[in-house]
Amino acid sequence: MKKFINSIDSLLDESLSGFAKAHADIVQLHAEPHFVSRKTPAKPGKVALISGGGSGHEPLHIGFVGSGMLDAACPGQIFTSPTPDQMLAAAQAVESGGGVLFIVKNYAGDVMNFEIAAEMLDCANETVFVSDDVSLPKDHSTGRRGVAGTLVVEKIVGAAAEKGADLAACKALGDRVNGAIASMGVALSSCTVPALGKPTFELGDDEIEMGVGIHGEHGRETVKLMTAAEIVEHLAGVIDDELKPQKGQPVLLHVNGFGATPLMELYLIYELAARFWQKRGVDICRSLVGNYTTSLDMAGCSITLSLLDDALLSLWDAPVHTASLHG
Amino acid sequence: MKKFINSIDSLLDESLSGFAKAHADIVQLHAEPHFVSRKTPAKPGKVALISGGGSGHEPLHIGFVGSGMLDAACPGQIFTSPTPDQMLAAAQAVESGGGVLFIVKNYAGDVMNFEIAAEMLDCANETVFVSDDVSLPKDHSTGRRGVAGTLVVEKIVGAAAEKGADLAACKALGDRVNGAIASMGVALSSCTVPALGKPTFELGDDEIEMGVGIHGEHGRETVKLMTAAEIVEHLAGVIDDELKPQKGQPVLLHVNGFGATPLMELYLIYELAARFWQKRGVDICRSLVGNYTTSLDMAGCSITLSLLDDALLSLWDAPVHTASLHG
Repeated sequence: MKKFINSIDSLLDESLSGFAKAHADIVQLHAEPHFVSRKTPAKPGKVALISGGGSGHEPLHIGFVGSGMLDAACPGQIFTSPTPDQMLAAAQAVESGGGVLFIVKNYAGDVMNFEIAAEMLDCANETVFVSDDVSLPKDHSTGRRGVAGTLVVEKIVGAAAEKGADLAACKALGDRVNGAIASMGVALSSCTVPALGKPTFELGDDEIEMGVGIHGEHGRETVKLMTAAEIVEHLAGVIDDELKPQKGQPVLLHVNGFGATPLMELYLIYELAARFWQKRGVDICRSLVGNYTTSLDMAGCSITLSLLDDALLSLWDAPVHTASLHG
Repeated sequence: MKKFINSIDSLLDESLSGFAKAHADIVQLHAEPHFVSRKTPAKPGKVALISGGGSGHEPLHIGFVGSGMLDAACPGQIFTSPTPDQMLAAAQAVESGGGVLFIVKNYAGDVMNFEIAAEMLDCANETVFVSDDVSLPKDHSTGRRGVAGTLVVEKIVGAAAEKGADLAACKALGDRVNGAIASMGVALSSCTVPALGKPTFELGDDEIEMGVGIHGEHGRETVKLMTAAEIVEHLAGVIDDELKPQKGQPVLLHVNGFGATPLMELYLIYELAARFWQKRGVDICRSLVGNYTTSLDMAGCSITLSLLDDALLSLWDAPVHTASLHG
């Protein structure tokens, strides 16, 4: 295993500390239990948005803490759910009368721990579960996984909360956005979890993993290496079947890198995905390309399509000031 | 070779097209010869800042075109200098009476082609050569290479030009900034140039390349894998010897990923580099962490230290609106 690392035990703490130092103007790191909150608290009465999940997906979620997006994020160990005490401590630190909205990627561990925290919390709270990964069937036993679309939910609900939407409105909006997003990913390589020390699955030199998640698990199928155009046809085809955007439908097209894929290739994927929907008359009015929801050192990417309307567009465009999203 | 690619011949065009589509609000892509310019031209009389170089280092330079930074960028083929006709076409498109400042990384091909363009240009022009890579000795035959510090020169001179500094002032400022920057990189893997189809150098499972450039060339030395702390001691030590920052000296600390290194590891490197200079009483007042000057799919990073003063700090902080730097 070749990584920049001192020891497996210190990796997360040292990395979080570096993150907090590099962005000391935006965030504050709390220890025992660990969470990241805004340096400048939101105005009293605003709904407090809290997310979290296993580490290894940076900048998700810590990079999205700040004005216009999250109030706090709880990083678990690598690919491991944060614990309820982290969520409780974060909620107690940032709740200011408007209640708490948890935004949770749909994984068994995350769901369970956020539910425990929600039950223990002595203030109004709601939870939005994100389940945008269409590589799994809709009726999958534990539901679909939350992947790169989580950022879109966090950005749009974050903007609404900042504008004064109340808890019920934020919860309804989060559910609505989750229903209008579909993502699917492909991996050219596995990732290496430091504690494991070797790739979590093996791929031949001419194989890729289609419909892959973000935790180093196997995807929907292992297929032969194909051209970027063929890969995009496959991913975009599944997404299109799910969302069925009509001609003229405004959408946000997000191409997300898994951590080890260079920007040059991500822009190539963006070009091909844009052509796919432009051919169908879909109005790609917003874009986001880069490494936002990663899977350690995995080479690969996902495509996320989000259906927009005037209200969602205006919230997507609203000011945001975080370590990893600005505008 | 596993990459997202349709064909070696179309890769750059398709990627540039995706970049231009994703950032159509900020940039405009011109073909034959290829260059990227601002969507909204700068105000007449402003010094026109133009950079460029081989592709494969994205977001450098195309991601830095926009208000507060570059007026245009000329992308060459992968790891290959752009041609003088690209620079001439870019200059003719964006020059508006204030003259042209070329910002050029110090590589023989880039230097030669920008010099040819400068000679053919029928307006006032100057060139700043960036040579921040301290892994080579100061008296190296062709001078030191320009690497991640180039971004700092482009940002600071870009801000000055936007504020109305004239050509001579921009040239002097660029030279001054170049003299106050030192960078050094380390690679955990080589990179794979698509046309070559295999890594440009081989590294054992327990080897890393210290003092590496950004074109897949061998570095200063191949050494055994060491801890992140030892790597940072080495890189920061060479940089510190060069710049000799005094106690209380304000600096910008930039940790740059080469393309395949996850953010979690880059923040770990930032933490260790910050500790290195904090111990010495240096005032790390600004930071930048991420993949900005990459080398295709190379795993690795570089550390760049920039000495600041009040004037440089204010220019670093000035508004910028590009695809890859915002604030």
